[in-house]
Amino acid sequence: MKTIKNYKMIIEYDGTRYNGWQKQGNSENTIQQKIEDVLFKMTEKAIEINGSGRTDAGTHALGQTANFHTDSEMNCDEMVKYFNKYLPKDIAVTDIQEADNRFHARLNAKGKKYIYRIWNSSVHNVFERNYLFSYDNELDVDAMKKAASFLVGQHDFKAFSSIKKNKKSTVREIYSIDISKKGDEISFLFYGNGFLYNMIRIIVGTLIDVGEGKIQPESINGILESCSRENAGKTMPSCGLTLLEVLY
Amino acid sequence: MKTIKNYKMIIEYDGTRYNGWQKQGNSENTIQQKIEDVLFKMTEKAIEINGSGRTDAGTHALGQTANFHTDSEMNCDEMVKYFNKYLPKDIAVTDIQEADNRFHARLNAKGKKYIYRIWNSSVHNVFERNYLFSYDNELDVDAMKKAASFLVGQHDFKAFSSIKKNKKSTVREIYSIDISKKGDEISFLFYGNGFLYNMIRIIVGTLIDVGEGKIQPESINGILESCSRENAGKTMPSCGLTLLEVLY
Repeated sequence: MKTIKNYKMIIEYDGTRYNGWQKQGNSENTIQQKIEDVLFKMTEKAIEINGSGRTDAGTHALGQTANFHTDSEMNCDEMVKYFNKYLPKDIAVTDIQEADNRFHARLNAKGKKYIYRIWNSSVHNVFERNYLFSYDNELDVDAMKKAASFLVGQHDFKAFSSIKKNKKSTVREIYSIDISKKGDEISFLFYGNGFLYNMIRIIVGTLIDVGEGKIQPESINGILESCSRENAGKTMPSCGLTLLEVLY
Repeated sequence: MKTIKNYKMIIEYDGTRYNGWQKQGNSENTIQQKIEDVLFKMTEKAIEINGSGRTDAGTHALGQTANFHTDSEMNCDEMVKYFNKYLPKDIAVTDIQEADNRFHARLNAKGKKYIYRIWNSSVHNVFERNYLFSYDNELDVDAMKKAASFLVGQHDFKAFSSIKKNKKSTVREIYSIDISKKGDEISFLFYGNGFLYNMIRIIVGTLIDVGEGKIQPESINGILESCSRENAGKTMPSCGLTLLEVLY
């Protein structure tokens, strides 16, 4: 009898062509489905992988993490090669390691790092256009930094999420938000213990309102306290967002 | 009566979707055509632009250069903004300057810099996949460097070109070929006074034969002297090639 082992995998993808990470009834076109298709080809068994969490349609990843169980006799390097041979060119498996049998990529995640990138120029960024959101208006980076400082820490982020029902907790902790401008690119680096549905895209939309002087940095506190989505800014497009790393 | 001025423009493009730079009878889908379409919209006149030279279908550019004459009253900054407003997102005009009336982007070009990029790994490069050629075989970089040294200088490069007829000179001078490996990427940086049709793609194909030990570095001299295309290596795919800069 073969031993079933648990494997942790790191996945990189350009989300432009996909309906997000998570397998859905109405679409074959998700990252999870593409990976499970190759896993089926490899093992001749329908094996489900556990992702660390969803990413939206159009969102990218450098370090999405998942785990799966198999009795395959391939070693980790052989699996990595197999995945990359059969996956589409916009999805790559960059690493596979054997994990503790109890390891679960979603349940054991302790933190996540995301980046949201804005191209702040009227001249297109031709080569990275799918990984940035182009926004040409002038933005006050210092004001955005000040506003972001009010979001760091443990808060109820309900106002900054698209969640309709409120059964689960909307309290999360953001460890840091680093905003920097290099040349024509403004990037927002988020590190936290977890993020609600659309939370980063809504936070960036709100910070842009601050950067344009539409609201004051200090208004962030009131928006948080209101727990009301309508007080926060708009949801920014998914193309600017990349999941960088999942920490365990 | 308005003054007609001559303008020099720098153009950046992702060539993936296009049938190359040059306007063709049978295709609207060229970079030159896209730029002339916007120029027509801007000036309401059919103005032809002179590119520094063709780039093949699928080849990219960071610094393609062209010139055109117009009596438009827009200043250079306004023109740059206009072009980038109406060009597709995979083409950008990064600079426009007024030039001497006799300046011609092709006739006055003194040198060109190109890069050919190879992704030398079985793990896809997800985010730059359209700008690299993926080739997983092991390559001896030192042997390729040695072979490249025989190509530097003034030579008849007929063996390294896809030109069928031989009316025009096939003598060119390569000032330098710098080959470097950083992580999984091997890049070939070419600087010369001009390059024949497919010349860089055939040179890289031949250097790869050297890198794989199929031919010796010293064989390059015999290939050059033979002036026979069949003695050189295969033509590498256009996606790995980018025109970096045109020098005047």
